[in-house]
Amino acid sequence: MHVEPIRWRGDALELLDQRLLPREVRYVALHDAHEVANAIRDMMVRGAPAIGVSAAFGVALAAQRGDDVDAAAAELRKSRPTAVNLMWALDRMLRARDAGRDLTAEAEAMFREDVESCKRIGRFGAALLGNSVTVLTHCNAGALATAGYGTALGVIRAAVEGGKRVAVFADETRPYLQGARLTAWELHEEGIDVTLITDSMSGHFFQQGKFDAVIVGADRIAANGDAANKIGTYTVAVLANAHGVPFYVAAPLSTIDVHCPTGAQIPIEERSALEVTSINNVSIAPEGISVRHPAFDVTPSRLITAIITDRGVLRAPYEEAIREVFR
Amino acid sequence: MHVEPIRWRGDALELLDQRLLPREVRYVALHDAHEVANAIRDMMVRGAPAIGVSAAFGVALAAQRGDDVDAAAAELRKSRPTAVNLMWALDRMLRARDAGRDLTAEAEAMFREDVESCKRIGRFGAALLGNSVTVLTHCNAGALATAGYGTALGVIRAAVEGGKRVAVFADETRPYLQGARLTAWELHEEGIDVTLITDSMSGHFFQQGKFDAVIVGADRIAANGDAANKIGTYTVAVLANAHGVPFYVAAPLSTIDVHCPTGAQIPIEERSALEVTSINNVSIAPEGISVRHPAFDVTPSRLITAIITDRGVLRAPYEEAIREVFR
Repeated sequence: MHVEPIRWRGDALELLDQRLLPREVRYVALHDAHEVANAIRDMMVRGAPAIGVSAAFGVALAAQRGDDVDAAAAELRKSRPTAVNLMWALDRMLRARDAGRDLTAEAEAMFREDVESCKRIGRFGAALLGNSVTVLTHCNAGALATAGYGTALGVIRAAVEGGKRVAVFADETRPYLQGARLTAWELHEEGIDVTLITDSMSGHFFQQGKFDAVIVGADRIAANGDAANKIGTYTVAVLANAHGVPFYVAAPLSTIDVHCPTGAQIPIEERSALEVTSINNVSIAPEGISVRHPAFDVTPSRLITAIITDRGVLRAPYEEAIREVFR
Repeated sequence: MHVEPIRWRGDALELLDQRLLPREVRYVALHDAHEVANAIRDMMVRGAPAIGVSAAFGVALAAQRGDDVDAAAAELRKSRPTAVNLMWALDRMLRARDAGRDLTAEAEAMFREDVESCKRIGRFGAALLGNSVTVLTHCNAGALATAGYGTALGVIRAAVEGGKRVAVFADETRPYLQGARLTAWELHEEGIDVTLITDSMSGHFFQQGKFDAVIVGADRIAANGDAANKIGTYTVAVLANAHGVPFYVAAPLSTIDVHCPTGAQIPIEERSALEVTSINNVSIAPEGISVRHPAFDVTPSRLITAIITDRGVLRAPYEEAIREVFR
């Protein structure tokens, strides 16, 4: 099966409701920017590039309906704070509006460009992997996190398409279980070898020498290469570093926020305690307990072996490499 | 509330069914060694010292009923492979039988000694903590894991009783959620400040400088100080080491297996994939997926700041310290 998280119908945006996966494949049709903003906030769609493309279609819907485009963009901008692709996509749509361009065509272009960008990331990244490797990934930076194909999982797809033998370990990625529900599902659907583990198990398998590489996505990369990604990424990076395993971040240039000097300036969304204390609406913790739920963490660039972008592979010193690629 | 995992009724062993916590506090009465072995294997009771004491009562029940004590001990020995306290308790019961001692009295003595041992661990460990500290713990090495009071949480209890301000972060400890279901419940019941996080979050809070110490229990400690404990412990140890935070293992001497030279010789139980792919009988992963489920990992002694035992605090070089304490 070909995994399609986002379908554009010309006058409606259909999103695969990722909250129902892997139990149910259901698309929900959205007709205005407000519905798209709610879908992003409620995590019907997630993943930095997918959020960006969905928001662009939200602005296109506002323009089609004659709604206030600035107000639509403002509401969409607030739907998730950490992913910079959202801000990037909205800024691009507003510039297109200011230039008098057709906003539906602009959003459609962004969709196509996102898929192409993922395929380039895939090709650049696949070249970094050996012919027979086991790769650990965290969260879902797959087709489901983008317009299609994926960033981290795009590298896996490109390597498999290129004839390499790739076994993937997907950690489940608590609390929202994107690894168990999305990455394991997406790879299993496409016949790619995937093994599910809990987040607590990756250290043990690093210790056993199981992993040849780690590949993850990113929600925002600062100008110095520090990368915000799903909570738990930093732990995996520390483990990779302690075991001498390469740690790769795969992301399009739209994920790099050149106005953000370091990871310390990236806002970290704190989400609901309920996502920690209940799973599928069943409580797993005592009532009235204190809970913390930072949804992202920041991996300092010193722990990142390379950043695989749609414009090539960036390596330390990242500040120079990033300045160069944006020149 | 005073947490009592094990109640001896003279002719029956009542175990608090820990699988139902925190939703329900229910005791189950067991009348023979076979029922006790099943309860251990099915994790109605868990935690190395609690398993040991429960198994001792299982042997006592066999003796009371006139069942074959050797057969009972053999069945109990196979119920969980990693915790050495189980083997230690059974060996002690068989020696008591050989010496003609009353087995009920012997098991009762082991119960009392376990509580006393935890209180000594608590006192030795509390002296290592500052007056106002935040401690991360993993899994449940609490009253629920022992005859009462706990090992790692015994240190917390002793520190609180001694007037120290201790805030505890409990990671949830997937897949079996001992942190969320047991540690958070046990501490919350007793009014000790506890915050629940997922396993994936501890790295982020280490990075923020949140933790002053890590204290965990152990299921088996090798003669060189390597410690097997619940899966995920090794990851926490690597994180503590990377951030310069002391990593303490709290366990009675009965957890040290002097016949096991290093952690490499400790058998690691692989448990059912279902414990990973479903929570409260609700599936969270695609059907037919590959899963790994090592239930324990081994933390090498070089990552352990000190082992807090009922006979004092052991420090590197552990091989000498352990030889000395067993002399």
